[in-house]
Amino acid sequence: MTRFAFTVEFDGRPFMGWQRQAHGPSVQQALETAVAAITGETVTMHAAGRTDAGVHARAMRAHCDVAKDIASHRLMAGINAKLLPDPVAVTACETVAPDWHARFSCTGRAYEYHIVNRRAPLTFEAGLAWRLAQPLDAEAMHRAAQHLIGRHDFTTFRSAHCQSRSPLKTLDRLEVTRTGDRLVVTAEARSFLHHQVRSMVGCLALVGYGKWSPDDMAAALHARDRAALGLNAPPDGLYFVRAVYPD
Amino acid sequence: MTRFAFTVEFDGRPFMGWQRQAHGPSVQQALETAVAAITGETVTMHAAGRTDAGVHARAMRAHCDVAKDIASHRLMAGINAKLLPDPVAVTACETVAPDWHARFSCTGRAYEYHIVNRRAPLTFEAGLAWRLAQPLDAEAMHRAAQHLIGRHDFTTFRSAHCQSRSPLKTLDRLEVTRTGDRLVVTAEARSFLHHQVRSMVGCLALVGYGKWSPDDMAAALHARDRAALGLNAPPDGLYFVRAVYPD
Repeated sequence: MTRFAFTVEFDGRPFMGWQRQAHGPSVQQALETAVAAITGETVTMHAAGRTDAGVHARAMRAHCDVAKDIASHRLMAGINAKLLPDPVAVTACETVAPDWHARFSCTGRAYEYHIVNRRAPLTFEAGLAWRLAQPLDAEAMHRAAQHLIGRHDFTTFRSAHCQSRSPLKTLDRLEVTRTGDRLVVTAEARSFLHHQVRSMVGCLALVGYGKWSPDDMAAALHARDRAALGLNAPPDGLYFVRAVYPD
Repeated sequence: MTRFAFTVEFDGRPFMGWQRQAHGPSVQQALETAVAAITGETVTMHAAGRTDAGVHARAMRAHCDVAKDIASHRLMAGINAKLLPDPVAVTACETVAPDWHARFSCTGRAYEYHIVNRRAPLTFEAGLAWRLAQPLDAEAMHRAAQHLIGRHDFTTFRSAHCQSRSPLKTLDRLEVTRTGDRLVVTAEARSFLHHQVRSMVGCLALVGYGKWSPDDMAAALHARDRAALGLNAPPDGLYFVRAVYPD
């Protein structure tokens, strides 16, 4: 058995999310089917993060074990050919130690959330960004975001379906930058609760509109109550961009 | 009658091109239909450039005349609502003088051509960029491009269907830049021949691969013969990005 690690890019629009589902297409299923077509083996693909329906990835990391003797560049080319026309592609592939695990070895995860702040509907980016028509104050959003940095009980920003044992997480970075009509929220942590980034971004949008002050963000956090959540952002603008490993 | 000027963004994938066609959807038809729905008037929409099937626009300029008394921001909002779910959006709209013409007043046009230089198939950008798998030498491409600057007979780079009276054009700028795996070719001129940008980019790709030297580009230009064309790039990567007007 050889363990292969993959870097995977996918457009989440046609998928029910990363994880295999009985009722619709998933990125995991697309990849496992492609590997099976190349190797003749039934594999399980593990990912650094299990993204929701409609969420995208620039560089998801994943792994699986393969018995067949095959070079990593051939496996990558074969998988990519089998994935077409699904909008999923393996952008890198290498062999790793048998104890390397895409999910459990991962010590850091980064997401970007893209907002397009304009009146006109989206064309190229329909389903790939969150369009907000009213002018957003990106500086106020950034200030509000700093209230969430550090180790906190993030119950307010946690989905009712979250399977994490604890609502305690350490948020390392939450930055809001604007370039023209595009706002990018960058979030980094060892791990996140289910819907945490979308929930934080939704509340940041309220701050951007002036409906919430930056202090309201702190109050929402301290409430430790899902009912204190102002708004949950749609999956459209969310991208898994980086997984960090010790080596 | 009031003349309205529009800035239009469109994803060219579902369209037969800008110009109205009997056999398929066009951007012109989508816009004229939307204006008719708002004003009750049959209008003709004129554009700075008549893009081909599958070619995109970040900021096409267009105009039409409307008899109905309507504010430009209402007209824009109404058109955008009617255009959905087509990937066409009006990003700006203003009234202009009755002799302002999107095509005939235009004194400069700029296109970008996007190439993604990687082995993996495209996901987010399928149909929105040209993927080339073999490593491209962007510096050689840029050097070769400089042979085309100036006033020349561009017959080599002209489609057999080109309706321009003369093959003489003045190319003001043709630059190739690379950022990571993305190459962007920027082309500026008062006007272009049919397929000129795609033909120039196709030959630049041959230079990038090392199949052509920069001097071969000069030789192709001087041949003034369509048979000397090395390669025509697909429409996927081409974007109309700017129209320039005297005021």
